[in-house]
Amino acid sequence: MKKAGTDYVLKRGVAEIIVEEELRQLLASGRPLRLKQGFDPSRPDIHLGHVVGLRKLRQLQEMGHQVILIVGDWTAQIGDPSGESVTRPMLSHDEVRRNAETYMQQFFKVVDRGRTQVRWQSEWFGKFSLSDVIRLTSKFTVAQFLAREDFRKRYDAGRPVAITELLYPLLQAYDSLEIEADVEFGGIDQKFNCLVGRELQGMMGQRPQQVFLMPLLVGTDGSQKMSKSLDNYIGVDEPPYDMYGKVMSIKGDGLIIPYFELLTDIPDHELREMKEQIESQSVNPMLVKKRLAREIVAQFHGIEEAKGAEERFAREIQSGTVPDLVPEFRPVKAIRAVADPSTGAVLVSGSGLLVEAGLASSGGEARRLIAQRAVDVDDQTMTGDEWQVKSGTIIKVGKRKYARIVLPSA
Amino acid sequence: MKKAGTDYVLKRGVAEIIVEEELRQLLASGRPLRLKQGFDPSRPDIHLGHVVGLRKLRQLQEMGHQVILIVGDWTAQIGDPSGESVTRPMLSHDEVRRNAETYMQQFFKVVDRGRTQVRWQSEWFGKFSLSDVIRLTSKFTVAQFLAREDFRKRYDAGRPVAITELLYPLLQAYDSLEIEADVEFGGIDQKFNCLVGRELQGMMGQRPQQVFLMPLLVGTDGSQKMSKSLDNYIGVDEPPYDMYGKVMSIKGDGLIIPYFELLTDIPDHELREMKEQIESQSVNPMLVKKRLAREIVAQFHGIEEAKGAEERFAREIQSGTVPDLVPEFRPVKAIRAVADPSTGAVLVSGSGLLVEAGLASSGGEARRLIAQRAVDVDDQTMTGDEWQVKSGTIIKVGKRKYARIVLPSA
Repeated sequence: MKKAGTDYVLKRGVAEIIVEEELRQLLASGRPLRLKQGFDPSRPDIHLGHVVGLRKLRQLQEMGHQVILIVGDWTAQIGDPSGESVTRPMLSHDEVRRNAETYMQQFFKVVDRGRTQVRWQSEWFGKFSLSDVIRLTSKFTVAQFLAREDFRKRYDAGRPVAITELLYPLLQAYDSLEIEADVEFGGIDQKFNCLVGRELQGMMGQRPQQVFLMPLLVGTDGSQKMSKSLDNYIGVDEPPYDMYGKVMSIKGDGLIIPYFELLTDIPDHELREMKEQIESQSVNPMLVKKRLAREIVAQFHGIEEAKGAEERFAREIQSGTVPDLVPEFRPVKAIRAVADPSTGAVLVSGSGLLVEAGLASSGGEARRLIAQRAVDVDDQTMTGDEWQVKSGTIIKVGKRKYARIVLPSA
Repeated sequence: MKKAGTDYVLKRGVAEIIVEEELRQLLASGRPLRLKQGFDPSRPDIHLGHVVGLRKLRQLQEMGHQVILIVGDWTAQIGDPSGESVTRPMLSHDEVRRNAETYMQQFFKVVDRGRTQVRWQSEWFGKFSLSDVIRLTSKFTVAQFLAREDFRKRYDAGRPVAITELLYPLLQAYDSLEIEADVEFGGIDQKFNCLVGRELQGMMGQRPQQVFLMPLLVGTDGSQKMSKSLDNYIGVDEPPYDMYGKVMSIKGDGLIIPYFELLTDIPDHELREMKEQIESQSVNPMLVKKRLAREIVAQFHGIEEAKGAEERFAREIQSGTVPDLVPEFRPVKAIRAVADPSTGAVLVSGSGLLVEAGLASSGGEARRLIAQRAVDVDDQTMTGDEWQVKSGTIIKVGKRKYARIVLPSA
């Protein structure tokens, strides 16, 4: 990653900075700044959604600043609003240490280890007394905290908000005080918590931290925030070919440019050109997506691995070779008769099968696809509607849609 | 205090018992019960409002039960909702000890020292960790606590409720768990806090405590809950004559019977008779009030002191002798001229002086009082409106209203 200018760091792919003018002054002062980044050791896996912020940390490190990574071994016990179950079993010291190692091994793929200091919450919360809790909780009101959007929504809907959950932002804020953070980094959904830190530091006579908020990366499903639990994520630890394939599988073309913006250093003017080309259909979006996949794989695995992944993808997926993983499908309604009891082969309605398998949205579309010679059954292009299939038969529609037939008994 | 029956203890002057049937079973079991009573060491003075509950403790001690007195040296730091300023400076260990001694010296005027165990919150909260706080706060929701009437009112009115204040009921509840309370005692305004204790014990596998709630005694102003800060209180440490005088000064006659009910053992049937007599005007309420004052003084100072106070009151107040303490008054508007520069005597408008001193509500009333020969100046009944007064002159209106003139220079 090359050293970037202040404007680029503060503008490219940033959701909000509080307060940008103050941050510019701090950056101009020449003093190395203390950049706070927290992590939840109960969730040690880093995906591209996290990488958006980690790249900013790296850019600022290149400018001479220092990252303070906070291992949230205490806040992990509470869990930032998960809604229903609000406390989680305390992780053992060993589990935390193991998860922290897993995390850092990924973290330092993006962030410079040499300019990172690791601090554990237990350094200060391990000896936190009830007096400390009383002092901390006395500085904020219930109304201030219920103003936080997710608390407010749950409270108004009559869903429980445990008193403990109000402690979460307070503990996170106390971290900032303890490490004298100059800037805290987080997703835009962390805005409230980061602002509490800012306020607490001011109350305690520290210079209030600046808050650097990143946009939330949409996951491969094309609709929701990337997250492991939604299974729409691309992990930084995934092998080159899986990573390449997952980028290629992102739904729709609308995310291509945002991914370039948030996850690569391709200059803004090039992004504008690409965007225009896609919109005016003067380029095949597939080609642009392949460049994105290559860029991302190269960041984590190097350029050679990226090329290898691209070649394999072209060979297996684009040329029609059946990929390793094809979704299985158990037909029911489309079956017309048993064709061969010894092999278990059955006669089916081809258009009915495509609809039942989700490969076509209607019988009309299915018949059109067949008429366009877009449907292969075990590499044989189908033209009629009466097909013979058995367990293991591969149905292919267009270039990328597959299903593998599974029948009850073979 | 004589040993009282269960029905008397559970019915006479009680606001609410939760759950009465369970408490009756516990009392019938023969096991000595652990009766929890807390006190705030930042407020060590006991007045008759507190005595209502302490008398119940004493009655139950006479039945063989044990009082556990909790010195609230930790909750005192938070302060149960004071509204605006929510945390108070931590009392020093010496201050707490001194205040606890002051409190107990009064407490044991009513409660049996031999059947009382004293516990300090610092025994358990001194070593309370952040983990303990997290566990405790995870068991209750913000909504449950905002349902408490005073929190709700302040929250709805946009007035601050500090997060710390939610801790207060939790700490009080934890006390019940720690001492394995069978019954907690409090004013009816403590209902919410006591119920949290009940709930917490149940969650932690203890038998939930019973809750014994006392009515709030109205103070000498006849309208508000007795409290030191409203200066409408009668302290248990006050000398016999002051105590007697304060009872006699209670505004209106409507409180005579409630005071008898909550603060004496005069049987219910006698109270009913007294009430009828007062209502039918077949007795002078002043006589009934004197009996009340005598009964109360006798409880704290013995029957001889009570008689002495009554005699002095009759002599000084009822017969017209000037009492020891007469409010001072500095006339300004009523002064017409200097009468004698050597003594500093001045000529005043008598009716103007009465109004200015607050002894009459208007000039008309002042003139009526003078015409009725109800006004004495230094024991001389006044008839006209031009009076000569000097520093030290005593003005008396009717039997009980006095003012002592103070002039700038004598």
